Amino acid sequence: MCTAATYKTKDFYFGRTLDYEISYGDQVVITPRNYVFDLREGGQLKNHYAMIGMACVMENYPLYYDAVNEKGLGIAGLNFVGNASYKKPVEGKDNITQFELIPWILGKCATVKEARQLLKNMNLIDTPFLPDLPVAQLHWIIADKEECITLESLEEGMKIYDNPVGVLTNNPPFNYQMFNLNNYMQLAVENRSNTFSENLELNQYSRGMGGMGLPGDLSSQSRFVRVAFVKMNSLSGDSEEESVSQFFHILGSVDQQRGCCKLGEDKYEITLYTSCCNTDKGIYYYNTYDNHQISAVDMHKADLEGEKLYTYAPIKGEQIRMQN
Amino acid sequence: MCTAATYKTKDFYFGRTLDYEISYGDQVVITPRNYVFDLREGGQLKNHYAMIGMACVMENYPLYYDAVNEKGLGIAGLNFVGNASYKKPVEGKDNITQFELIPWILGKCATVKEARQLLKNMNLIDTPFLPDLPVAQLHWIIADKEECITLESLEEGMKIYDNPVGVLTNNPPFNYQMFNLNNYMQLAVENRSNTFSENLELNQYSRGMGGMGLPGDLSSQSRFVRVAFVKMNSLSGDSEEESVSQFFHILGSVDQQRGCCKLGEDKYEITLYTSCCNTDKGIYYYNTYDNHQISAVDMHKADLEGEKLYTYAPIKGEQIRMQN
Amino acid sequence: MCTAATYKTKDFYFGRTLDYEISYGDQVVITPRNYVFDLREGGQLKNHYAMIGMACVMENYPLYYDAVNEKGLGIAGLNFVGNASYKKPVEGKDNITQFELIPWILGKCATVKEARQLLKNMNLIDTPFLPDLPVAQLHWIIADKEECITLESLEEGMKIYDNPVGVLTNNPPFNYQMFNLNNYMQLAVENRSNTFSENLELNQYSRGMGGMGLPGDLSSQSRFVRVAFVKMNSLSGDSEEESVSQFFHILGSVDQQRGCCKLGEDKYEITLYTSCCNTDKGIYYYNTYDNHQISAVDMHKADLEGEKLYTYAPIKGEQIRMQN
Amino acid sequence: MCTAATYKTKDFYFGRTLDYEISYGDQVVITPRNYVFDLREGGQLKNHYAMIGMACVMENYPLYYDAVNEKGLGIAGLNFVGNASYKKPVEGKDNITQFELIPWILGKCATVKEARQLLKNMNLIDTPFLPDLPVAQLHWIIADKEECITLESLEEGMKIYDNPVGVLTNNPPFNYQMFNLNNYMQLAVENRSNTFSENLELNQYSRGMGGMGLPGDLSSQSRFVRVAFVKMNSLSGDSEEESVSQFFHILGSVDQQRGCCKLGEDKYEITLYTSCCNTDKGIYYYNTYDNHQISAVDMHKADLEGEKLYTYAPIKGEQIRMQN
Repeated sequence: MCTAATYKTKDFYFGRTLDYEISYGDQVVITPRNYVFDLREGGQLKNHYAMIGMACVMENYPLYYDAVNEKGLGIAGLNFVGNASYKKPVEGKDNITQFELIPWILGKCATVKEARQLLKNMNLIDTPFLPDLPVAQLHWIIADKEECITLESLEEGMKIYDNPVGVLTNNPPFNYQMFNLNNYMQLAVENRSNTFSENLELNQYSRGMGGMGLPGDLSSQSRFVRVAFVKMNSLSGDSEEESVSQFFHILGSVDQQRGCCKLGEDKYEITLYTSCCNTDKGIYYYNTYDNHQISAVDMHKADLEGEKLYTYAPIKGEQIRMQN
Repeated sequence: MCTAATYKTKDFYFGRTLDYEISYGDQVVITPRNYVFDLREGGQLKNHYAMIGMACVMENYPLYYDAVNEKGLGIAGLNFVGNASYKKPVEGKDNITQFELIPWILGKCATVKEARQLLKNMNLIDTPFLPDLPVAQLHWIIADKEECITLESLEEGMKIYDNPVGVLTNNPPFNYQMFNLNNYMQLAVENRSNTFSENLELNQYSRGMGGMGLPGDLSSQSRFVRVAFVKMNSLSGDSEEESVSQFFHILGSVDQQRGCCKLGEDKYEITLYTSCCNTDKGIYYYNTYDNHQISAVDMHKADLEGEKLYTYAPIKGEQIRMQN
Repeated sequence: MCTAATYKTKDFYFGRTLDYEISYGDQVVITPRNYVFDLREGGQLKNHYAMIGMACVMENYPLYYDAVNEKGLGIAGLNFVGNASYKKPVEGKDNITQFELIPWILGKCATVKEARQLLKNMNLIDTPFLPDLPVAQLHWIIADKEECITLESLEEGMKIYDNPVGVLTNNPPFNYQMFNLNNYMQLAVENRSNTFSENLELNQYSRGMGGMGLPGDLSSQSRFVRVAFVKMNSLSGDSEEESVSQFFHILGSVDQQRGCCKLGEDKYEITLYTSCCNTDKGIYYYNTYDNHQISAVDMHKADLEGEKLYTYAPIKGEQIRMQN
Repeated sequence: MCTAATYKTKDFYFGRTLDYEISYGDQVVITPRNYVFDLREGGQLKNHYAMIGMACVMENYPLYYDAVNEKGLGIAGLNFVGNASYKKPVEGKDNITQFELIPWILGKCATVKEARQLLKNMNLIDTPFLPDLPVAQLHWIIADKEECITLESLEEGMKIYDNPVGVLTNNPPFNYQMFNLNNYMQLAVENRSNTFSENLELNQYSRGMGGMGLPGDLSSQSRFVRVAFVKMNSLSGDSEEESVSQFFHILGSVDQQRGCCKLGEDKYEITLYTSCCNTDKGIYYYNTYDNHQISAVDMHKADLEGEKLYTYAPIKGEQIRMQN
């Protein structure tokens, strides 16, 4: 499925993995301020904040998986199959389809605080992008430098949760994921002393035993615990290079290796790409399953007053540097 | 600590992570055939097979952590603290210090089969490289395309184990590690059906639940289980790029992130480098904690008939490729 | 804390453990039909169904922990600290205190179906039994031969959940406990085959390995999983002796041993008593931490038309039968 | 399979569970001092210490599963399938069959110290009791008040291990079981503080969370860890009743419930009996799967100078005490 995380050093970083069995043709896409979004239930989003992120472009429309705007607000949508529940349009509400959510929020809000405000009158509706396209069942992580929230549209209504851990995966709903972390409160990055019995001599035969109990599989609940532990304990210098490097190590802890998540005959889910956006600088870093090198697109090198999408095909082949 | 693994597609790949809190100044080192090794207990190793690997060079001597020779035989030494036991020299035996082991075997043997033969008369001795240098407590994984073994010198004597899983970490001794895998035999890369109770409706709420129970911490036993699972289930194309990429994903599953293995005040163990050598082609690939891009040195581009070491400083800064 | 379970063979059995650090003077108490309960918010409960269970009797009032009525309906209240939320009286509602809940339901309802109906207009209020007595924070399992439900009064309101597993422990709320069972769906009472890797020989070195992953600690979530597994897979003959014996084995799986749950200096939680009521016959079986023998009280041996409580002090000393 | 444990308060207690799918007709058997054991490889054991324990009596010979002698030395044999290896008779050695081991040691040794001495010249041989009876593959726990050892006859030879934990189950060999305890050194009987991350609020939502990670299944390795934890942390008064009661709680933690360990069509392993012998007083306590009450036989009520076995059939039906 997918994992999203935030990380703060001097700047603020926001990114995610996208785990799936096939790619829909993802591209890094910069949407400049004057690109016009026609909203399905009427009205247009124009003269909005510029944004950058990974998207599948269909009919000249950027279907963003994750994006950050020029003000430093980021959103990522992650699979939430079986729990996401979208509604029918309601008069008096801002009726927004799930595929419009990212541009709508990033286009209008500079901060999570503003997004919270905007979401109050929002009604997430079930209109597909194209008549025969299934509606992606998603929930979202929305973050800026100051705070992070999780947005879920459930059968019982819309939920906005504070997200103190700054990570998101998939099922179960976010309050279940957070409760489950309590079961791991005794984990530690340091080795622990023998509390099994003072009358037995037990030994720390390895470094790293303080984390014993951390789950190592690829299920969404296990990834949530693992990435939370790695992220909350991460340390790095605060330079751009060190911060970005550490971010890719954080999400590397939930990398899905080809062969380890089988979906059926010859179908395997892998981590198609991992992204990390410096939300202060608007630089979108990523690598792909088959290319460990980090590539990057800088939104501020594009003309953000434009009207047309800027698209950059991801570099997918392994870029090996020969030293002799 | 460290993790080693092998991987076979069209060619055979052998590599490891080196996890530690400080680097001793590692370099990629090619030892050509006519570089002379003076053996501590007498004799010289000259006119030997050429080899490539990561080493700390002291007094013009390559202290290899892991290396592969031109015939396709690979060895890596991994920490085995508290269990490694070296002996005093014994007459009539090949008395080899732990730091001579890698060149001695790679210099003389083309295959694991030949190494098994050579090891029969070997006595691993406890002479340090320099008087005040501690003797590294290690055990070894030795592999070629055909087979893989583990070598341990314990208090009770030398053990050579078949290594059917092709991975090695650290403590406990190898037979304990292999036994422990039995506890995970029920894990699977596919989701599993409900066998808890046919009278309860339980749901696969995520992909990847078949691996639940896989340990996710950084201890040596947990890394052994995790990397064994990932390696044994790995799938990739058999091209050089795809094979190398997958290999780095395998060892990425046991990456040690900065902050997650605390050794003391401001001291953290991290994965300093990850290597992957195509043993058929003699190309040594690696990346470092702060540089996700894979770099490589090709032994066959050096003059293997030479007498002097070829050294290549690892590229350590993050090599980010800007696309705009 | 506590664990409750149901079990069905020819008859239906309902019981629980009560885990705590001190006993409040529990007794087996039969409340006959004409004992009068004065309800706190007005009215009386008289001419009701007779009931039997374990209670602390204060001021001639049976504060039941668990009880079953003559119609075969059972209820047990279990600790739910931090989640239970009782309300203020509301006009037009049946305002019932938490300590009145068991007699109120058992006095008026013959079945879970009737209890569901009665609960619709109930408002659970926070009046203590005595001014300075804290209000126990509880949730309840209610069961008859046909169905089982869980009742929780949360801050957000009252919840009635179908309880298909027929067990209850403590925190977290019941929907979290049920969701968590999904994580154990792959457990089995039979040994499982090797799905870790078909290329490794892994062995079933013991019987019972199919249950590996079942938690063994005394926390409320772990007890829920463990007792659910044991109960759902339990097998026994359907005679009274065999059924009762098996029931005590089911709850024995969550027995709290003295020393294993430390609350503070010299304070330990233990399983004070374990009960099992044949709801068809009205026989209340129990044993205590220090008496493994099962004792029993038969409600039908008392005059159920009476007005006064029948109390039986539990037999607490180990009843050892010497054979020579 | 089986679990054995020791427990010390004022007196010393030694006992075990016997887990199997069928009973071979077990009886409590007192062997008085002048009962003569004919040894298979010559000689007789006569005028020996008296002993009491659970045995299957065949051809007037007590095939003990576990027993204690009048001096306070106890032994129990537990399944060790696939690892036990008995030898052929060797001249100059005490050639003892596995079924003679218990009477031979208990008949001649007053202490573990003496047993260690006697074992030095022992050779455990593979003679079956009857030609067509399979030889039970066992290992043994031997204990007195002062110390405890484990005896294993492996293919590589006989091993005598100090057993500081005073428990034994089945596979793997004892040194593996002891090593594996290191993986649980961080467990505790008290709740632990949050070391996951100081920047996250995580809660102890239940008592008993310090033991999270303790395995709850019925495999031999999981039972070893669980019973070790319960035994090492057990607390009780030191009276006979309190000590015996606590002992049954210790072994109750590894009770095998009917239905939870399936061996094949309608075949289930259960805990057939649990024993606890006060080695100071020579009183053998036990209960059975279907009788929770503890029964007992006192060896000193028999004439220990006799020549004939005293046998007592276990009381197997549930002994329920009606209180009204």
